Amino acid sequence: MKPFETTSSRVVWSCPWYRIRQDEIVTPDGQPGIYNIVEHPGAVWIIPVTSDGEIVMIHSYRYTVDDWCYEIPAGGIITGQSLEEAARTELLEEIGGTAATLDLVARFYTMNGIGNEEAHIFLATGVELISPPQHESTELMDIRPMPVTEALRMAQANEISDGPSALALLLCAEKLRLLVVEK
Amino acid sequence: MKPFETTSSRVVWSCPWYRIRQDEIVTPDGQPGIYNIVEHPGAVWIIPVTSDGEIVMIHSYRYTVDDWCYEIPAGGIITGQSLEEAARTELLEEIGGTAATLDLVARFYTMNGIGNEEAHIFLATGVELISPPQHESTELMDIRPMPVTEALRMAQANEISDGPSALALLLCAEKLRLLVVEK
Repeated sequence: MKPFETTSSRVVWSCPWYRIRQDEIVTPDGQPGIYNIVEHPGAVWIIPVTSDGEIVMIHSYRYTVDDWCYEIPAGGIITGQSLEEAARTELLEEIGGTAATLDLVARFYTMNGIGNEEAHIFLATGVELISPPQHESTELMDIRPMPVTEALRMAQANEISDGPSALALLLCAEKLRLLVVEK
Repeated sequence: MKPFETTSSRVVWSCPWYRIRQDEIVTPDGQPGIYNIVEHPGAVWIIPVTSDGEIVMIHSYRYTVDDWCYEIPAGGIITGQSLEEAARTELLEEIGGTAATLDLVARFYTMNGIGNEEAHIFLATGVELISPPQHESTELMDIRPMPVTEALRMAQANEISDGPSALALLLCAEKLRLLVVEK
């Protein structure tokens, strides 16, 4: 049973990528209140490992924080897309890459205090860079392939400032080390 | 130099915890556009390690996702608070705890595609549970102390659905294992 009662629900602000839903609620101890939720369709993050055993990182300017960030390819899920379609789309758009295999390895909430966004983490292997990336004009980034060990070192050293990217790498550290050993 | 030009900036929606800022921008290739930013004052996440070598986890109902989540204590920074003050406040409110030492170990962006929230990760040692937690009526949670090895196992197994909590634990895995060995 849902512990909070929802007495009304309406969208109070929206843009094409997310919206704010405002609920009137009654808490378990009977207090009325307002809960605002950033409603987001969810997103995918993909660790792209090439046939040469490198991880294709991205160095991206983020207007939101006025900062250059190391990241793995990622993007919001478009209505109607499966998670795997979203992952393949981002690989192609952000690094111009295809993947031989794509495994969903984890899922978590990015901001469960204020919003419902879920991050779906994929490990992509046999990645090949087949075409130039197709960036939107608001996307300012370049591609930084690097050894698995270097990407893991950066994640551990807090040099990857995008939280979900760092989490994806640390979560897959063992798998990634094995992939390189197997080569 | 900032790669995007900002031609106007205004707040289009706000609540007490965050707000939406809408900027008119010109991209590096000269295209005009709109960028909406979830402006958030930032937050702290704290790994609380007791004198007995346990981690004090929280099991919390999150209305945003209608789900029960394992987490470490966390909360938004209130205006005027230092990061350490925010961390000590959350420890006291969420688990009724004090810490002998509090180390800022990492910082990252939680959602740099849509907002500017920074997560500041603390490792708290010598934690003692001295009082009942003081939860707000919208906070539905209980305390789950557990061995360091169990918290790390859960993080690695994707059983900690709060992303920043899982990242904090995996990032500090080596330090946490050493803390237990030293005991």
